[in-house]
Amino acid sequence: MKFLFSLALSFLCFHSFAQQNLIKYVNPFIGTAKMGHTYPGATVPFGAVQLSPDTDTIPYEINGKYNGDVYKYCSGYKYEDKTIVGFSHTHFNGTGHSDLGDFLIMPTQGKLQLNPGIASDPSSGFRSSYSHQNETAEPAYYKVKLDEHNITAELTASTRVGMHQYTFPKSDQSHIILDLMSGIYNYDDKTVWTFVRVVNDTLVTGYRQTNGWARTRTVYFAMSFSKPFKEYGHKNFDNKQVYRGFWRKFDQTKNFPEIAGKKIRIYFDFNTDESEKIKVKFAISSVSQQNALENMQAEMSTWDFEKVKSEAQKLWNTELSKIKIDATDEIKTNFYTSMYHTFINPTVYIDVNGEYKGLDQNTHRAKGFVNYTTFSLWDTYRALHPLFNIVQPSRNNDMVHSMMAHYKQSTLKMLPIWSHYSNDNWCMSGYHSVSVIADAIMKGVYTGNENEALDACVETAKHRSYEGIGEYMDKGYIPAERSGISVSNTLEYAYDDWCIAQIAKKLNRLDVYTEFSKRSEYWKNNYNKQTGFMQPRLADGTFTKEFDPLQTHNQGFIEGNSWNYSFFVPHQPSALINTMGGKKEFTKRLDTLFQMHLPDEFFAHTEDISREGIIGGYVHGNEPAHHVAYLYNYADQAKKTQAQVRRIMNMQYKPSADGLGGNDDCGQMSAWYIFSALGFYPVAPGNNEYAIGSPIVNDANITLENGKVFKIKVIDQSDKNIYVKRVELNGKVLDNYFLNYEDIIKGGELKFYMSSK
Amino acid sequence: MKFLFSLALSFLCFHSFAQQNLIKYVNPFIGTAKMGHTYPGATVPFGAVQLSPDTDTIPYEINGKYNGDVYKYCSGYKYEDKTIVGFSHTHFNGTGHSDLGDFLIMPTQGKLQLNPGIASDPSSGFRSSYSHQNETAEPAYYKVKLDEHNITAELTASTRVGMHQYTFPKSDQSHIILDLMSGIYNYDDKTVWTFVRVVNDTLVTGYRQTNGWARTRTVYFAMSFSKPFKEYGHKNFDNKQVYRGFWRKFDQTKNFPEIAGKKIRIYFDFNTDESEKIKVKFAISSVSQQNALENMQAEMSTWDFEKVKSEAQKLWNTELSKIKIDATDEIKTNFYTSMYHTFINPTVYIDVNGEYKGLDQNTHRAKGFVNYTTFSLWDTYRALHPLFNIVQPSRNNDMVHSMMAHYKQSTLKMLPIWSHYSNDNWCMSGYHSVSVIADAIMKGVYTGNENEALDACVETAKHRSYEGIGEYMDKGYIPAERSGISVSNTLEYAYDDWCIAQIAKKLNRLDVYTEFSKRSEYWKNNYNKQTGFMQPRLADGTFTKEFDPLQTHNQGFIEGNSWNYSFFVPHQPSALINTMGGKKEFTKRLDTLFQMHLPDEFFAHTEDISREGIIGGYVHGNEPAHHVAYLYNYADQAKKTQAQVRRIMNMQYKPSADGLGGNDDCGQMSAWYIFSALGFYPVAPGNNEYAIGSPIVNDANITLENGKVFKIKVIDQSDKNIYVKRVELNGKVLDNYFLNYEDIIKGGELKFYMSSK
Repeated sequence: MKFLFSLALSFLCFHSFAQQNLIKYVNPFIGTAKMGHTYPGATVPFGAVQLSPDTDTIPYEINGKYNGDVYKYCSGYKYEDKTIVGFSHTHFNGTGHSDLGDFLIMPTQGKLQLNPGIASDPSSGFRSSYSHQNETAEPAYYKVKLDEHNITAELTASTRVGMHQYTFPKSDQSHIILDLMSGIYNYDDKTVWTFVRVVNDTLVTGYRQTNGWARTRTVYFAMSFSKPFKEYGHKNFDNKQVYRGFWRKFDQTKNFPEIAGKKIRIYFDFNTDESEKIKVKFAISSVSQQNALENMQAEMSTWDFEKVKSEAQKLWNTELSKIKIDATDEIKTNFYTSMYHTFINPTVYIDVNGEYKGLDQNTHRAKGFVNYTTFSLWDTYRALHPLFNIVQPSRNNDMVHSMMAHYKQSTLKMLPIWSHYSNDNWCMSGYHSVSVIADAIMKGVYTGNENEALDACVETAKHRSYEGIGEYMDKGYIPAERSGISVSNTLEYAYDDWCIAQIAKKLNRLDVYTEFSKRSEYWKNNYNKQTGFMQPRLADGTFTKEFDPLQTHNQGFIEGNSWNYSFFVPHQPSALINTMGGKKEFTKRLDTLFQMHLPDEFFAHTEDISREGIIGGYVHGNEPAHHVAYLYNYADQAKKTQAQVRRIMNMQYKPSADGLGGNDDCGQMSAWYIFSALGFYPVAPGNNEYAIGSPIVNDANITLENGKVFKIKVIDQSDKNIYVKRVELNGKVLDNYFLNYEDIIKGGELKFYMSSK
Repeated sequence: MKFLFSLALSFLCFHSFAQQNLIKYVNPFIGTAKMGHTYPGATVPFGAVQLSPDTDTIPYEINGKYNGDVYKYCSGYKYEDKTIVGFSHTHFNGTGHSDLGDFLIMPTQGKLQLNPGIASDPSSGFRSSYSHQNETAEPAYYKVKLDEHNITAELTASTRVGMHQYTFPKSDQSHIILDLMSGIYNYDDKTVWTFVRVVNDTLVTGYRQTNGWARTRTVYFAMSFSKPFKEYGHKNFDNKQVYRGFWRKFDQTKNFPEIAGKKIRIYFDFNTDESEKIKVKFAISSVSQQNALENMQAEMSTWDFEKVKSEAQKLWNTELSKIKIDATDEIKTNFYTSMYHTFINPTVYIDVNGEYKGLDQNTHRAKGFVNYTTFSLWDTYRALHPLFNIVQPSRNNDMVHSMMAHYKQSTLKMLPIWSHYSNDNWCMSGYHSVSVIADAIMKGVYTGNENEALDACVETAKHRSYEGIGEYMDKGYIPAERSGISVSNTLEYAYDDWCIAQIAKKLNRLDVYTEFSKRSEYWKNNYNKQTGFMQPRLADGTFTKEFDPLQTHNQGFIEGNSWNYSFFVPHQPSALINTMGGKKEFTKRLDTLFQMHLPDEFFAHTEDISREGIIGGYVHGNEPAHHVAYLYNYADQAKKTQAQVRRIMNMQYKPSADGLGGNDDCGQMSAWYIFSALGFYPVAPGNNEYAIGSPIVNDANITLENGKVFKIKVIDQSDKNIYVKRVELNGKVLDNYFLNYEDIIKGGELKFYMSSK
């Protein structure tokens, strides 16, 4: 007994040590340059707070003009920038559209300035220059020296609370600015209202309400200082706020504790000694100021920054340790940074007391699940949620519960399309909640009422007034007149409908199965046998005349062209192969895609894709083709899959700030990497099959929630040995290049034998 | 036993019959013309919903220009107007500043128009002409024929729910418009945000958030139709709401159930048969859409309009029956309409489940009291709350509890000044919560912690940064440089401080008593012995040189001049008399006030006062002199009090739309009338004494909450017998012209013997 105990103890010690080792392979700067749109700041896994530096939250108004590029600043931070505006508390990971950036805080020193100023002259405002030499980013920890102010800023977080630690110089003019105007994608009228109460000299509460990508979004906060401020004040930059009436009885600009308006910046003044640290806790809630305060009190009772940081990093280590790999340091960095990026979105959207704001803008109490938000489903149904079904099944179950709650609160009676913060922004095509739900049901992950979930899928898929669904149901395709992305929608609806059919089959709902199986083949209606491409069709049944399969604009596709989208039949690859003329012809088509040379002109006219995100004509920087390299398997050309996925891994993922070939898209790019690095990929979520690729790790242990371990061993792994000679599952040779969910989830060993040919 | 029972029964029948008789003496149109600022619509006593027609809610934008007079439309309705824009759910009674007018509903017919149009051409929009011949107003009931649309509209209400009944002609183009842009004092940027969910074809919920007189005000609603609408849609008039993004996937203008924006008007379409009635229930809440719906379900389960109306009118009869008078029909109309107007504000501000939104914008649950809002305290501390201490002590107790809740939620740690809907607008001078609290404590009405209440009063009265309190405490007056209303403030603070001293004396808090007794004499510091007037003083101690005691502008006073305000020492009339040179000199001064002739020029330059509101130089239309006619009593000239109060009653209160000489001011004007009509008046709330005047009723029975009855008998009452020869209390002659609260509250009989000299 005693022996066993100390064995267990030493195992724990080893385990804990191993966890600490994984943190160091995460480089949060990866993807912060160019188009990755990741952020380097502090967050815990799936944390509601993402406390991160904003180098600009364009457009800022300068002399009445807006300046800058909104798209660039989706995550608030660009590695290329030379100045930091401040640290705000909410950020998307890797999106291609933007919102959030709530509650920007900036510590300054010297003369008080309440304007951010411009990047080319940081002394013109409260912003500061900084250098990457003086900047550190780890999971749940960020540190930077603000040169103009001679202040070191450190950030960490718990789930719902951010902690700032500012090391000031000696000064009787030290300030902490709370900017309620600032925000990401911050056009003039975005901030609808802000409200602040200075409760006492260390506590401030309030809220910020915006009309942006989320139409009606409110975030409440509670802000606590480790040291009382000596004075405070604010400026209301809204000249149109005409009625102020008897409020003039007070000097409201200074030490006046009831603050409200559309364009408010508040400052808090301190005297500081040399190297004095002032800390700020900042908690958020979707429900109320009280809940924000309760979140703070429940989650962060200490003022010990190191303790908060260490607890937050422990959480990361626990998550990262779910997959332990052996590989080169470079691959480990790519892999664990990918792991890190997959465990950021969706985010927890519920207070410690169980309350959250629903889509109906009412306060709800979640019964038996944790509510999540930020569902970038067009991206994440592909590999992120399938990955969760292996390493985060409890959370994925909660996510499906959250989608079902959304559905129940929807007056449209629809599942989420692209939802965040009690809103749906309807971004992109398809209705891919149904894929996530089907995959969770097929894999036994969803604990809710499956028939109710199927009903929600069916109701969503039959919402005739939504983006051509009516015409799709009537004609089997969406007329080009009806929608600018008619082909994307038809193809994606067909896949989603197949997902619905799979649930129906499992639940013995044969009428639904029959109806949606039929719909799952509607992709055929956009296939032009003449050209061999998926093409938009007019209401009269003819294909549109002006057609360019390379063009991404006005050709019926969203974030893609026909060359990529024509392969989008993940659920029926054999039928697609037949339609395209058989395996040989199909293989040739795939080869052409990966080998073609695109003219420079293509990039000039194409949104959201840079040359870095493209291999031949294959676009990895956007999602529609993420399964395409694996399609060779279905044409009996597994070697070509193996070659291409290795190529994509090496070209599209690099351990540097500019290392991502496109937006990380809430972890989808990263999830693709994790699967591919381990050697398999879910081509059609909703079935339980994975296509085998070419692992890049030497070996890996996946520790499952059920306590079992799935081991991956790669024999003769090397840069040149990219081909899979043989695969053994639990010692038995696999007779094709496919693996099943059941094989993984019951634990076991997958052995790859690699060769150079 | 049997005999007694039937006696009781016949008493009840009589009682019930008597109640029905009182309704008919209420004419809600009184005060709707000129400057009364009352509204004719439907509300129950102290009801949260005031459902009333708006004839205009200027400014409406017409071709980019705002048109009209904001002040005129404080209550939304002007008797002089020829068109009605619609029916909205919240209105102040008789204020001189404005807000509210939430959720305007208009039934129309024919071509849909979503603009209100202009009064000179009602067919230019959804508004309609109407005539007073086709208009009826009773307590809790309003009816009008909308000529343009050939629709009869009827309104009634419960506490938190309004009911509309629209009788349509036969039409396949009948509409009900819900205008979320409309509001009173509706300048361009007032509507901060509105949000609406069309839950199903008979239920709509949402909210409206405004930045007006109340800075941060949100009202939630639930709206239910008696008949399903066939279609619906909306228009968003906000061109600046730039981001709409993927919302374009839907045709949002039609049958799209998730609506939000700053400038929204929604329509619901019906087919109607000839004389078909469509009813709408409309519930409000300060907390949430759910609470609004719960309020509706709890309060108004029926669709029977007559039943709702009859229950509402029963509530009014119960309240009106608290004072039964014998008098001429004209006096009864003045009296019961005054009773009606005193029982409108403050209004219930709590949901049926006990939740309400506090000053801190948090949701609170009231423990042991009903929360009220709309405290027009500068007006209502004078006679309205003192009247409540006699006929509404339970409600007044709740109101003091509400003020204490406000104080506890205030980051400024101040009691309300002029508060409504979870905001303080700080209107007018003084801090008269303390008067209401003192009066309730001195009269034994307040059931809360009296020491805590005293602490709240003291903290409010020592808030140095508020409107000169610091200087007032240091110098004994407020320097004219500091405040434009320095004299009003000093005089009113001195009275309020005396109130605080009275509480302190009762609670044996001698330090507080001493401090505030001293402050209660600070009025003396603004008295200029040279001129015999209260005058502004500069920081150096000298009086300002340019001084005109008639002038109401820039002379240190608010809504008054020195002629009126110089008598504002209600708490120390003897000291004032001495200061002014003794009783004889004082009487002469009062005589001059009531007899002087004001030049026309005076009215041209004076805000908020019309010739109708003035007797000599005595201004009854504003409040500061409301006690002045009763001051003769203290100079042993009770006959002159008697003569003047009869004169005021006859000149300032008439049973017609233009019958009020000034703003009703949330019932203060009306409360003055009720006291005066009964023959006594509370000169200095905070003590329990009333000055005797000259009753205008023949007799009156006041039924108290403790079950006792206080009877007033007036012997030899007539138009000419305006003088009080003798007063007997319970058969014993009163030896002076003063009466005590205790005498009233234990029941008894007050007998006036009148004569013509």
